Amino acid sequence: MENELRELLESVRSGRLSVEEALSEWNKQSYEDIGYAKVDLGRQKRQGVSEVIYGAGKTGDQICGIAKTLAERGQTPVVITRMSEDKAAMVGDVLPLRYDPISHCGIIGEMPIPSGIGCIAVACAGTSDLPVAEEAALCAEVFGNEVIRLYDVGVIGLDRLLSHLDELRSASVVIAVAGMNGTLPTVIGGLVSCPVIAVPTSVGYGTSFGGVTALLSMLNTAASGVTVVNIDNGFGAAYSASLINHMEVGK
Amino acid sequence: MENELRELLESVRSGRLSVEEALSEWNKQSYEDIGYAKVDLGRQKRQGVSEVIYGAGKTGDQICGIAKTLAERGQTPVVITRMSEDKAAMVGDVLPLRYDPISHCGIIGEMPIPSGIGCIAVACAGTSDLPVAEEAALCAEVFGNEVIRLYDVGVIGLDRLLSHLDELRSASVVIAVAGMNGTLPTVIGGLVSCPVIAVPTSVGYGTSFGGVTALLSMLNTAASGVTVVNIDNGFGAAYSASLINHMEVGK
Amino acid sequence: MENELRELLESVRSGRLSVEEALSEWNKQSYEDIGYAKVDLGRQKRQGVSEVIYGAGKTGDQICGIAKTLAERGQTPVVITRMSEDKAAMVGDVLPLRYDPISHCGIIGEMPIPSGIGCIAVACAGTSDLPVAEEAALCAEVFGNEVIRLYDVGVIGLDRLLSHLDELRSASVVIAVAGMNGTLPTVIGGLVSCPVIAVPTSVGYGTSFGGVTALLSMLNTAASGVTVVNIDNGFGAAYSASLINHMEVGK
Amino acid sequence: MENELRELLESVRSGRLSVEEALSEWNKQSYEDIGYAKVDLGRQKRQGVSEVIYGAGKTGDQICGIAKTLAERGQTPVVITRMSEDKAAMVGDVLPLRYDPISHCGIIGEMPIPSGIGCIAVACAGTSDLPVAEEAALCAEVFGNEVIRLYDVGVIGLDRLLSHLDELRSASVVIAVAGMNGTLPTVIGGLVSCPVIAVPTSVGYGTSFGGVTALLSMLNTAASGVTVVNIDNGFGAAYSASLINHMEVGK
Amino acid sequence: MENELRELLESVRSGRLSVEEALSEWNKQSYEDIGYAKVDLGRQKRQGVSEVIYGAGKTGDQICGIAKTLAERGQTPVVITRMSEDKAAMVGDVLPLRYDPISHCGIIGEMPIPSGIGCIAVACAGTSDLPVAEEAALCAEVFGNEVIRLYDVGVIGLDRLLSHLDELRSASVVIAVAGMNGTLPTVIGGLVSCPVIAVPTSVGYGTSFGGVTALLSMLNTAASGVTVVNIDNGFGAAYSASLINHMEVGK
Amino acid sequence: MENELRELLESVRSGRLSVEEALSEWNKQSYEDIGYAKVDLGRQKRQGVSEVIYGAGKTGDQICGIAKTLAERGQTPVVITRMSEDKAAMVGDVLPLRYDPISHCGIIGEMPIPSGIGCIAVACAGTSDLPVAEEAALCAEVFGNEVIRLYDVGVIGLDRLLSHLDELRSASVVIAVAGMNGTLPTVIGGLVSCPVIAVPTSVGYGTSFGGVTALLSMLNTAASGVTVVNIDNGFGAAYSASLINHMEVGK
Amino acid sequence: MENELRELLESVRSGRLSVEEALSEWNKQSYEDIGYAKVDLGRQKRQGVSEVIYGAGKTGDQICGIAKTLAERGQTPVVITRMSEDKAAMVGDVLPLRYDPISHCGIIGEMPIPSGIGCIAVACAGTSDLPVAEEAALCAEVFGNEVIRLYDVGVIGLDRLLSHLDELRSASVVIAVAGMNGTLPTVIGGLVSCPVIAVPTSVGYGTSFGGVTALLSMLNTAASGVTVVNIDNGFGAAYSASLINHMEVGK
Amino acid sequence: MENELRELLESVRSGRLSVEEALSEWNKQSYEDIGYAKVDLGRQKRQGVSEVIYGAGKTGDQICGIAKTLAERGQTPVVITRMSEDKAAMVGDVLPLRYDPISHCGIIGEMPIPSGIGCIAVACAGTSDLPVAEEAALCAEVFGNEVIRLYDVGVIGLDRLLSHLDELRSASVVIAVAGMNGTLPTVIGGLVSCPVIAVPTSVGYGTSFGGVTALLSMLNTAASGVTVVNIDNGFGAAYSASLINHMEVGK
Repeated sequence: MENELRELLESVRSGRLSVEEALSEWNKQSYEDIGYAKVDLGRQKRQGVSEVIYGAGKTGDQICGIAKTLAERGQTPVVITRMSEDKAAMVGDVLPLRYDPISHCGIIGEMPIPSGIGCIAVACAGTSDLPVAEEAALCAEVFGNEVIRLYDVGVIGLDRLLSHLDELRSASVVIAVAGMNGTLPTVIGGLVSCPVIAVPTSVGYGTSFGGVTALLSMLNTAASGVTVVNIDNGFGAAYSASLINHMEVGK
Repeated sequence: MENELRELLESVRSGRLSVEEALSEWNKQSYEDIGYAKVDLGRQKRQGVSEVIYGAGKTGDQICGIAKTLAERGQTPVVITRMSEDKAAMVGDVLPLRYDPISHCGIIGEMPIPSGIGCIAVACAGTSDLPVAEEAALCAEVFGNEVIRLYDVGVIGLDRLLSHLDELRSASVVIAVAGMNGTLPTVIGGLVSCPVIAVPTSVGYGTSFGGVTALLSMLNTAASGVTVVNIDNGFGAAYSASLINHMEVGK
Repeated sequence: MENELRELLESVRSGRLSVEEALSEWNKQSYEDIGYAKVDLGRQKRQGVSEVIYGAGKTGDQICGIAKTLAERGQTPVVITRMSEDKAAMVGDVLPLRYDPISHCGIIGEMPIPSGIGCIAVACAGTSDLPVAEEAALCAEVFGNEVIRLYDVGVIGLDRLLSHLDELRSASVVIAVAGMNGTLPTVIGGLVSCPVIAVPTSVGYGTSFGGVTALLSMLNTAASGVTVVNIDNGFGAAYSASLINHMEVGK
Repeated sequence: MENELRELLESVRSGRLSVEEALSEWNKQSYEDIGYAKVDLGRQKRQGVSEVIYGAGKTGDQICGIAKTLAERGQTPVVITRMSEDKAAMVGDVLPLRYDPISHCGIIGEMPIPSGIGCIAVACAGTSDLPVAEEAALCAEVFGNEVIRLYDVGVIGLDRLLSHLDELRSASVVIAVAGMNGTLPTVIGGLVSCPVIAVPTSVGYGTSFGGVTALLSMLNTAASGVTVVNIDNGFGAAYSASLINHMEVGK
Repeated sequence: MENELRELLESVRSGRLSVEEALSEWNKQSYEDIGYAKVDLGRQKRQGVSEVIYGAGKTGDQICGIAKTLAERGQTPVVITRMSEDKAAMVGDVLPLRYDPISHCGIIGEMPIPSGIGCIAVACAGTSDLPVAEEAALCAEVFGNEVIRLYDVGVIGLDRLLSHLDELRSASVVIAVAGMNGTLPTVIGGLVSCPVIAVPTSVGYGTSFGGVTALLSMLNTAASGVTVVNIDNGFGAAYSASLINHMEVGK
Repeated sequence: MENELRELLESVRSGRLSVEEALSEWNKQSYEDIGYAKVDLGRQKRQGVSEVIYGAGKTGDQICGIAKTLAERGQTPVVITRMSEDKAAMVGDVLPLRYDPISHCGIIGEMPIPSGIGCIAVACAGTSDLPVAEEAALCAEVFGNEVIRLYDVGVIGLDRLLSHLDELRSASVVIAVAGMNGTLPTVIGGLVSCPVIAVPTSVGYGTSFGGVTALLSMLNTAASGVTVVNIDNGFGAAYSASLINHMEVGK
Repeated sequence: MENELRELLESVRSGRLSVEEALSEWNKQSYEDIGYAKVDLGRQKRQGVSEVIYGAGKTGDQICGIAKTLAERGQTPVVITRMSEDKAAMVGDVLPLRYDPISHCGIIGEMPIPSGIGCIAVACAGTSDLPVAEEAALCAEVFGNEVIRLYDVGVIGLDRLLSHLDELRSASVVIAVAGMNGTLPTVIGGLVSCPVIAVPTSVGYGTSFGGVTALLSMLNTAASGVTVVNIDNGFGAAYSASLINHMEVGK
Repeated sequence: MENELRELLESVRSGRLSVEEALSEWNKQSYEDIGYAKVDLGRQKRQGVSEVIYGAGKTGDQICGIAKTLAERGQTPVVITRMSEDKAAMVGDVLPLRYDPISHCGIIGEMPIPSGIGCIAVACAGTSDLPVAEEAALCAEVFGNEVIRLYDVGVIGLDRLLSHLDELRSASVVIAVAGMNGTLPTVIGGLVSCPVIAVPTSVGYGTSFGGVTALLSMLNTAASGVTVVNIDNGFGAAYSASLINHMEVGK
């Protein structure tokens, strides 16, 4: 901000900009107002990744409008999460959408070539955790990461997990997805020495309380190096994992 | 009940008892009323183990009175759980009490010779879980069981647990005691094929919520063969484990 | 594990296996990876009962695939719990499924001949608890137990329960199923001297909170010998009860 | 209110009162303002019982001041609930207080001669529930009822309760006091045909949650005729029970 | 119970009954087992009112079966609560059912002539509370009470309530029904001197939490003489109110 | 009330009214009883705004009846909140309703000309918060306020909010609407010096708990000058904001 | 911000400030960093009232340091809330503190002369609510308001409240303070037509849950014009009330 | 694991080890059993950091014993968190402990020279959050990181935070510590593009619920790149942050 201000002041001092022009420049919006939304066009510059559209609370028309705005401004690939199949059909009529029915994610634009320090391993405990795990995996790919998928490796029948130990240990970051009592990140946290991002899922019944038990279990893990995101938040885990996998030496 | 009634009816029919005597016999109380308590003298006959005194909500005098009544009626060994050191001192002045400051249990009378199908393994996750684990272990011994203690075998540093696998697998029943996120019973449940009784403890901070997180984790375990008791309820786990370890073939 | 390792080492020492063969043997997976699931084929050997398929979070196709894998590998009878009628129809088109619409369980393969120390009594408080009680009863039969069903024996109108006292007392284990305030296990626990496994159900309204009140009531019971499983978890109760009913003397 | 207004209007119409006098009469306060409190002097007339002083949130001085005001205005007996021993000593220095250390209640003035339809039975499950049960019993006596005390009659060892069945059934109202899982009112509700007022107590540990589990259990009882008051609210139960025991035929 | 036993003993002593006949008499079930239910036929004798069928958790067939059993055994009027319109149609095809779509109650058999000390006032706060208020009112009538209905008398616009003060004060018992923050029983409790039974309803949104806020408000009322039942439990309030309204002097 | 009473007394004293006439005047109801509702006709006089109809818990017929009663008595504009489209169609057939499908509000009668000290700014964090924000905005207009709408100005991409700072600071009151973690009112509270009314919305997933997290966040804000209303209660916020915007100097 | 920036740009353009001077001006901190705190010196200018020190989480030394910094910079009167008596003594040794033991507030510097549209009425339900009510009253006075105190006017014995109706109705804003079930703001909200700010207190026992029940009751009030602050937050209520009472016409 | 096994098999094949020696080698414990604890000596090798002693649940003797064991085995620096001053004194008598009374941490042994990609910024919202922030900062230093401390930079008075923007943006990872409504990580998350680890603290009152509100707020943040640890878990945040700051390129 100081740099931008210094630049502005210099422009005024040098006479290149009038006071009014400088004010207008300062106020130039980094978003586009399309009525029902103020589309953030500065996030890619500000945070390295363009705005991700959370589809659940929006109409098909609204999703279209926001996606179009992002795409037209070059903020691609555009990702839409939590989008139902029928909304995807509406969007697909208007925009070149690729939709994945497992993760309920839609993508517009080219996938980036994977970069980063290493790869991101996405592990999930059971078959029912697949939608969340795939949201994480797909988003991680959109954010430019190579992804290893390790699915249905719950802690009962531990050799299912242990036989993939080498892959787990090869990862820069592990995203560990689990419902019910959410034990998987604890066990993985005891086996690897990289950061683990735990994602509780709403899978379970009775006292699983829609993912709260898994969340609490993860927050109270005895395993060090584990941090947690909101229930079913595969996207959030992928975002943080990608930031970690893109840490720059010498920064 | 039918047998007792049949007996009574026969006694009346045969003239051995008058109607009034029969009624009086029927009403003979199986407890002794000592004012502040109605001491249950029938539990040993009814359930195989005499009444255990829960010390927490009682004064030293009340504990003394109840313990004395039980002891005098031959309901030994008498166990008092959750008894503070100062109440133990008060009771010890009056009765031949052996007090264990770790488990906060006091015992009056001889310990039984271990019996049962096999032994009971009591495993706990961390050092802070010791009071609950010892309550379970001591009570199990009072109820006539051989006990194996496996302490501080939490799932981080899994070899601490795995190096005791043979002992775990030799048990008739495992009591798995853990606070925080209560993962231990899940991992043990995946390793043994005997019943596991899970005891959540109130050890932890923040979202451990005084043991609720551990409890929820245990109730939602993917491991089969695991049942759960109340938070910190070492006594209850020991009681159930002892019943299981004393199952009678041919019953 | 030590035994298996010793065997392996002996094989290598004796030259019967090369180092590579020994490693391959060690790594031989005890599960089959069918994409959306890693089917556990070792559970029957490890825990005496083959993997039970939890149908609720899976598609009909996924259930079919897992069931087929288990059946082909001789892991029968295959049980699928929480399976809706329409999924059952899908599975029934492909596999010889017997479906029970009350408990929502499906079974593939022959039922075992009952074994065990004695029988398992499944008692439930009201008509609405039948689905959970039947899940418990059916699973207990699949696991090789004789089952006594005592339904609608809630504590109001206590003689409904008391007139079945002899049957209750004849059991090795009692599974007590109740919703609302979950009083049944407490009353049964005061009447029998065998282990009682309490199953809270989600039956009720208002402050029954989908079974939480019943669960809390059971965890706080004054009756000794009662342990608890998750809300509506008839399968889990049956599993533990079966382990208890199959305790081996001289183990 | 209409009657009072009619009277006022008539007085004005007849000239007996001027408009100003009528207004002043209307506004005559039914309470006395002593600074830190507005002491309700109309409750005895309005509701048949004088204001009961809740001692917990007040200083000894404040309790003295309110009690004195009530006593001087003839609103006796004055009852103070939840008063610690040291506050009782302070009040006792100034006023002729009788203090009961079990129920933490203090009384000033003569006890009334019991009246009402019948008697009130106060039953509690365990020794630890005595303070609440005694608050209920004592208050019921202050409100002019004969009280039967049935203590330590929890549902384990059911004959402790059943041997007092005649006394229970002789009561006009039963107050059933219990902590832990609060089963007592359910069992009593199934045995008697008079109204039962259930009082949960904060006795218990772990998931008893300071009485919440007992409360939930009571609210979800299958026994008809049971209503519930706040946790530890012995006074409130006594108040309602007394109203019921003083129902007037022909009202 | 003692009386029944005495009678039995006398019969045996006098030779009127053989021991076997006496046992058979004793065991004569007070319920009828119709497979999916054990219909309680003793409740009318035991508690003065026949079993009320809770329709919510039962199929139309089950309701029919239970209702038919009760009706055939003369346990009328039969009331079914929480019965949907389509189930009512099914029952109405088989039995002479009168169905009230507001309260979702169905009745079979003649309504009793009102008896009791006085009448029961049923007051509710808003239009949305009508279903619960009507369940209470209708059940109270079935139980033989005269009922005054005071609907939509919430505390905002207090004169709606105050203009009915005479009716409120004429009642033996007031049932006060309210959702949202459940203030109505508190205000009524301050205006009347008879027992008030508070019924929280699940009406509201956001932090009304399906009636929990109303329930908590009622439990914490400063008004004396108020007891509470479960959320939406109009039937339970009516049952207790009826017991109170039928208190017998000289009992 | 005193004034009204004085007037009445004077009328009686002067002979203008008889006692009976005075009583009748006093009792003249300020509401109209239409069976299912007692329509409040005094609120506009008492509180400056006529009764707002909460449509969620009422049938189309009931809404019509109440709206008609209000309209006929000149209590316009009539606002109906939380009315579904199909109920709106029913009402629209009978009454001249203008319905807004975003806020689910319907209005009958002319909108007032804006008055008040200044304007009310309604800001919301995201597109999904629009229904609640519009309920607030529309109601504020009905209550006679000028409204500034600032939508989708969440704290991520802070310049979306900051570029509207002048508008925010020009307002008399700000209504800040937000779901998820409800940060918006905190940030606005730190930027403006007028009262802020925070409205949590039920927008979010997982641990947003239907608005509870947003509510808690708002209640615990470090920003001074922020008060809170119930989840999704746009109407309530508008009502309070309008009162504030219509404060009268010299009152 | 735009104005400040324009000013800065003009200064640079006109040569009055160099670019570096302008940057330095822009960055001039509005706070003073004293190590353990960054004391906000801009709040009085930004929001009209200087920073209020929340004493609960700070040591006596820290309070002294912050208070001194504020006082020396002319940010008086300084208010410290939630300060224990012993910390007050420490601060009083160093600074000219006036301490009020009821509200636990301390004040340094002169009280302002009351200003604003009218006065603020602070009403509380019971004697135990005094500390919170006094915190609100005192803070309101510090913020320059005239305050009317109406204490112990709970809704039982409604005439205590009604006899002060004129005072209530004369206020610009009412702060309604209540614990237990928090009914007071609802009743006041129905009686007045000015904004009501509800303050739940932690007074109560059992299910009052430390003020949560009062809070929920207030959030779900049917009274319009009521907004809510955090439990025991007398200061916050006073702050908002003062803002409202100082609304400027013509702003 | 495979590598270790291969090595073992080769040793046996080559005759260098006998089968028994190989088994003994395999079983060599990676921990030391000191009775009350099994001290993990493999964590430094396994996870790069030696075991951290959680002091809260342990006696001074136990802390000494474990610390001594770690120190003697070269697992330094030893860190003890949550250690009270008196326990620190006990440990300090035996071992060369440096104790920090703000963070309640003790350290034995030399601090490492900072390494890693960049530095870790630890920001906290208020003075009361200092203990948790310092636990995070100190632990991060122990784990070999350079730490920037930014304290009392809460979002009210936003320029306190913004004036440190350059420092924030220079960090590899930000640890954001906040109580109350936990807004800080959300605001920081919108300003930086590196991973943010959010630590809720138990600072607050009323509905802050001991940190739960802050936690929920953080889990529901709209800011991407934020993950969360348990309430007050400064250590855990430091551990994860250190892993991230030590990511190795080319891994």
